[in-house]
Amino acid sequence: MSTQKSKLRVGYPETLGAELFCDFPVEAELVALPDDLNHEVNIDVWIPNPYPTRAIRIWPQLRGVRLILSLMAGTEWIPAVAGPHVTICNARGAHNISTAEWTISAILSTLKYFPFYFEVQRSGQWKRRFEASAHYARITGDMRKIHPPIMLEELTGKKVLLVGHGAIGQEIERMLAPFHVELLRVARTPRANPLVHAVAELDQLLPQAGIVILILPSTAESHHLIGARQLALMQQGTLLVNAARGPILDTDALVSALNTGHIRAAIDVTDPEPLPEGHPLWNCPNLFITPHIAGSSPQFGPRAVRVALDELRRYIAGQPLENVVQAAI
Amino acid sequence: MSTQKSKLRVGYPETLGAELFCDFPVEAELVALPDDLNHEVNIDVWIPNPYPTRAIRIWPQLRGVRLILSLMAGTEWIPAVAGPHVTICNARGAHNISTAEWTISAILSTLKYFPFYFEVQRSGQWKRRFEASAHYARITGDMRKIHPPIMLEELTGKKVLLVGHGAIGQEIERMLAPFHVELLRVARTPRANPLVHAVAELDQLLPQAGIVILILPSTAESHHLIGARQLALMQQGTLLVNAARGPILDTDALVSALNTGHIRAAIDVTDPEPLPEGHPLWNCPNLFITPHIAGSSPQFGPRAVRVALDELRRYIAGQPLENVVQAAI
Repeated sequence: MSTQKSKLRVGYPETLGAELFCDFPVEAELVALPDDLNHEVNIDVWIPNPYPTRAIRIWPQLRGVRLILSLMAGTEWIPAVAGPHVTICNARGAHNISTAEWTISAILSTLKYFPFYFEVQRSGQWKRRFEASAHYARITGDMRKIHPPIMLEELTGKKVLLVGHGAIGQEIERMLAPFHVELLRVARTPRANPLVHAVAELDQLLPQAGIVILILPSTAESHHLIGARQLALMQQGTLLVNAARGPILDTDALVSALNTGHIRAAIDVTDPEPLPEGHPLWNCPNLFITPHIAGSSPQFGPRAVRVALDELRRYIAGQPLENVVQAAI
Repeated sequence: MSTQKSKLRVGYPETLGAELFCDFPVEAELVALPDDLNHEVNIDVWIPNPYPTRAIRIWPQLRGVRLILSLMAGTEWIPAVAGPHVTICNARGAHNISTAEWTISAILSTLKYFPFYFEVQRSGQWKRRFEASAHYARITGDMRKIHPPIMLEELTGKKVLLVGHGAIGQEIERMLAPFHVELLRVARTPRANPLVHAVAELDQLLPQAGIVILILPSTAESHHLIGARQLALMQQGTLLVNAARGPILDTDALVSALNTGHIRAAIDVTDPEPLPEGHPLWNCPNLFITPHIAGSSPQFGPRAVRVALDELRRYIAGQPLENVVQAAI
């Protein structure tokens, strides 16, 4: 590389703070981009604001962008905005731990009836054991009289279907290991070792699992992958977890399946998102919603920037990029 | 053993259902004991009702008891009731998985601010991100402006102090493994491999951990093991988890430490228990209470009975018992 060559101009969101980028290679000239950028700027590489609405707003002012390094795992909004002539890389890896931890947390909280026990605590009354048992009966349809009353379920030994087996899915599998779950996996690309089934086999797999975890990219193929028919195939009381993207799951069908008491769900994403006030999902039973915060973490910024930085170093060195989600044409 | 020998009479709580005991050895004659037993009964072995108040009520009617096989891990009420002339065994192992799962669930729910997000969901409004950040600042005292706003913490990489390293403590350690926590251990009996510190070192260990888990037996020595001084030694924002017994933790000191915002806590046990209506603990901030349900599970009955059954087989065969908490004198 000639020493005369002008530096690579890398635009980054000003709100993230320059100190996050202090380890960037000297070949890169950092250009802080305010969210209200009101003039044209020439950059070679763009690190968009993690909030798509803010990033989209400044795109029309950017000139010369050849490479987009997203700080997020999900980049589904970028191709429509930036077109096919840029290479897009995601921050594969940066959200693995936080999203996988959210998934395990959401599953355990549901199985331990923590939403119910938060209510018990709020009531300021200790003795709610038999109500918890009735709560269980309502959820599972299991009306047998059981002694002692059932209150909490165990994750240990449950059958879990992972729909998606990318970086985050594999992290979830790693965190499930101590619970000796029986794991079924399905993904776009079937594989052996470990056995990952093809999506075509989804209908045969859904009735087998007590917990179904969605952790796959939002694409045209995965749109409404889980609809009324798939929900009906699930066992009574199945816990459906969506840690991926809202549109993978048909919202109307989900509302229905929750309101009839057929399944339970814990979701970090919705469709539409944000979920508007008054939407029927807010009042569904046996549902835990978080407002798309699963990937967030104090470690998010440094980790995502490190992934982008490593990719940038490969780009400067002319090495193959590792996290390409769209290659420029 | 002579074939003429009369069978060993084993009393069990009628409410548990005889089918749980169908695998008991033929050398045992099972005697169902109602909770309102109103006449004297001769038995050799007593399996008390898991609810101490119900078990204590029938003790005066029991004659000839030489061995008590508890279905619980905690047997602290039994010696005072039954005296020193019986051998007492606990159901070591039967509650390991459920109690350890509750512990991991309570930790993750707290670190992910699930109580806060249950409130968000209840409000039916999506956008509460910055309030969550303020919530974090209130709890941790970390007032730095952080972008993006911090919402969830990670368990991964945290420093965890296990106070107690018996069967349940070891199970908790096993379930913490995927989170790569830095583990410190303290117990009555110091050991190497893994390193378990002596209780005398507790004061030096407390300031080091971000999460402190109490999982040790309730004894005269462990009474108020954690009081005002120990709480003051903890880091600002430390998460204290009590999955053991209420009296190990000084309740007044806990109320204080919570109300000043110094620590956070998740507790399944209290002192007094049940926690009476109007008790100040109910209104402490940064606290999650469950009403002594951590060990409960649909698998509880079968597992606890299996432990008791194995102990009974050893007793009949004249082999050493494995779960003795009091040897008869």
